[in-house]
Amino acid sequence: MAEPVSFRCISCGQEFSPWSMDYFCPKCGFPAGNLEVLYDYAHVPKAFVKPEKFSLWRYEALLPVGAEYAPPLRAGLTPLYSVPRLAKALGVRALWIKDDTLQPTASCKDRGTAVTVAVARKLGRTALSCASTGNAAASLAGFCAASQLPCYIFVPKAAPAPKISQLVAFGARVFRVDGPYDQAFSLALAASQKFGWYNRSDGLNPIVVEGNKTVAFEIWEELGEVPEAVVVAVGDGAVIAGVCKGFLELAWAGLSERVPKVFGVQASGAAPVVHAFRRFQRGEPILPAEEPAETIADSIRVGKPADVVKAVKYVAETEGDYVAVSDADLVAASLELAREAGIFAEPSGAASLAGLRKLVKEGLVERSYRVVLIVTGSGLKDPQGVLRGLPEPPIIPPDVKALSEVMTRCC
Amino acid sequence: MAEPVSFRCISCGQEFSPWSMDYFCPKCGFPAGNLEVLYDYAHVPKAFVKPEKFSLWRYEALLPVGAEYAPPLRAGLTPLYSVPRLAKALGVRALWIKDDTLQPTASCKDRGTAVTVAVARKLGRTALSCASTGNAAASLAGFCAASQLPCYIFVPKAAPAPKISQLVAFGARVFRVDGPYDQAFSLALAASQKFGWYNRSDGLNPIVVEGNKTVAFEIWEELGEVPEAVVVAVGDGAVIAGVCKGFLELAWAGLSERVPKVFGVQASGAAPVVHAFRRFQRGEPILPAEEPAETIADSIRVGKPADVVKAVKYVAETEGDYVAVSDADLVAASLELAREAGIFAEPSGAASLAGLRKLVKEGLVERSYRVVLIVTGSGLKDPQGVLRGLPEPPIIPPDVKALSEVMTRCC
Repeated sequence: MAEPVSFRCISCGQEFSPWSMDYFCPKCGFPAGNLEVLYDYAHVPKAFVKPEKFSLWRYEALLPVGAEYAPPLRAGLTPLYSVPRLAKALGVRALWIKDDTLQPTASCKDRGTAVTVAVARKLGRTALSCASTGNAAASLAGFCAASQLPCYIFVPKAAPAPKISQLVAFGARVFRVDGPYDQAFSLALAASQKFGWYNRSDGLNPIVVEGNKTVAFEIWEELGEVPEAVVVAVGDGAVIAGVCKGFLELAWAGLSERVPKVFGVQASGAAPVVHAFRRFQRGEPILPAEEPAETIADSIRVGKPADVVKAVKYVAETEGDYVAVSDADLVAASLELAREAGIFAEPSGAASLAGLRKLVKEGLVERSYRVVLIVTGSGLKDPQGVLRGLPEPPIIPPDVKALSEVMTRCC
Repeated sequence: MAEPVSFRCISCGQEFSPWSMDYFCPKCGFPAGNLEVLYDYAHVPKAFVKPEKFSLWRYEALLPVGAEYAPPLRAGLTPLYSVPRLAKALGVRALWIKDDTLQPTASCKDRGTAVTVAVARKLGRTALSCASTGNAAASLAGFCAASQLPCYIFVPKAAPAPKISQLVAFGARVFRVDGPYDQAFSLALAASQKFGWYNRSDGLNPIVVEGNKTVAFEIWEELGEVPEAVVVAVGDGAVIAGVCKGFLELAWAGLSERVPKVFGVQASGAAPVVHAFRRFQRGEPILPAEEPAETIADSIRVGKPADVVKAVKYVAETEGDYVAVSDADLVAASLELAREAGIFAEPSGAASLAGLRKLVKEGLVERSYRVVLIVTGSGLKDPQGVLRGLPEPPIIPPDVKALSEVMTRCC
């Protein structure tokens, strides 16, 4: 592991000694005062160890906790697929898909959870909690079950049934909050403070980004260098903050000479981070970032993004940008991803593909770029979301003659 | 790759030159004449190459097709978790769980599919097909989408919605057959012969077992030796046939000195392989194996198992056995797996855990044994199956006072 040198406020820059506080700078408050975890980048080894077990723990040299605290589920080491056919269709030089759904609970959230649960064990915390649109909750519930730690989960009432079913199966104590995600978030924070739970909510706990960043290490390591652009869906901002910080740290530590432009994609009906980024570009304050949120993509249905400051500042530091796409584009991208690449993503998981198409059109991603799309959540988490408007497969009697007739009629 | 030395009939032992026929010995017919793929075991290298990409293709030295034909999705290299707590609870010396759901389409079927699609490409077949209770179909649909090959899928009408949704998303041509799996199987076979599709149905195509066997290679390689017992769910028999053949081949090739006892688990209401094994033990014929099938575990709801001959003969060769468990035991095992190990399995996926408990009780698995349980399918494939009878999480207003009241009342 790497002992952090400081926990620094993302807004005022005040540095705190590592582990002296859990969540945010007391002066700036939440979310302006979200913390970032910093290391002694001059002394990071120039190559990562290859441990026997394949997982994100091979990046221990840039993690705030050692593998001896790792919960017993394998997070990380997801596949990176080259898809030249899609590169051609999208009009870029090369395109890879990082399928970050191939993790224990089927979403990218397992990276942040693995490291956060490890920190909870190291710090001796005896229960965890989080608010979540569904994926982070399932992730925490799974890793807590494997670690035999109690956990308390707050999800908006509208979370899809498969996500709730994962939580119940894992034995988490689940509360469905009668309100949007943002209210579930506030309740989780208040309850965690009252009952002493270690809170894994995205954007609140700086350690989550420390796990999320490992996706950047994997991309860099598998490609042998960094691409020109990386595109990822954005809800509360903690995933894209991790993607950016990972690439930035590779540069800070001298492991990579360049940093790719990181692009965030939101749904048009839930785009507070896009709007905050525009304000930042105009020299206006990032906060408050709070607006109504409506999209079929439940994983990114966030009106009050908890990690918006990091999400804006880090993306700007990579010279990236933000873009919003319609729900129809999200659903179409899910289908395109399934049919062209064999990857079944929930609508938010395919946002990166929908976003790239728009980024190319607007000239923000140039045709000479090599691009990595991150796919963040499995289609099995929300099967109905992908299939909106598609006809059901026909029911046929079990004989070849009937089949032939159906084939003639419609194939 | 290893060029097979013969395709041999599992019943009469007649050898055919490799690739001279697709499915079964013409003299014995299907399913008695199912083929097994054999290699020159004296000349297998004593260690497998570590290719750059982590996948089952690292076992090329015992696969009938080279990685140059591999479809572009990563199959294999799933995690193996040590769970001492469960070992203690079950009363065995050591226990590992092989989470074979962490594959591109979330079931163990991706192993057989990867190798079968590769063979289809090598042989120049231009379309694939299969009958399936759901998981093999989703697997074939995903790998065909990634490979841009058309595929035709036959599932029983009763397959769970999430499985159907995967098929539709992947763009497969799907037929829901008004009858049980066995009729879908027959229809797929007849249609494939009529239309010239390469049929991946479990138990029909001998190549499927060639992919399935790689789970044994991974267990052996990760443990550095083989355990005393391996337990796995059984539907049509192709998965357990693969598990057995993998361990047997390691011995045939001199890579392992021992072969673990392989145990198969079926649902009490759908146990034709258990009954066939008992007949075999009494010196009676294995076939016909055909009986009604009723269980909540749709993945193993098979009344006429297509690979029963291999499933019986291979298990006997490992000195293993079969056991049947109730639906209630399957559901309880799903929950136990989720809550004790953080692994969310569909009911059939947890059959290995339910089976082990019974095997220990009956003395077939001794307390001195080190045991590997294979988990075959994700709980996200059938979330309702796992949650039968469990209460829904409470809906609460977004305030701490209301939460405290709920906590006092029921936590």
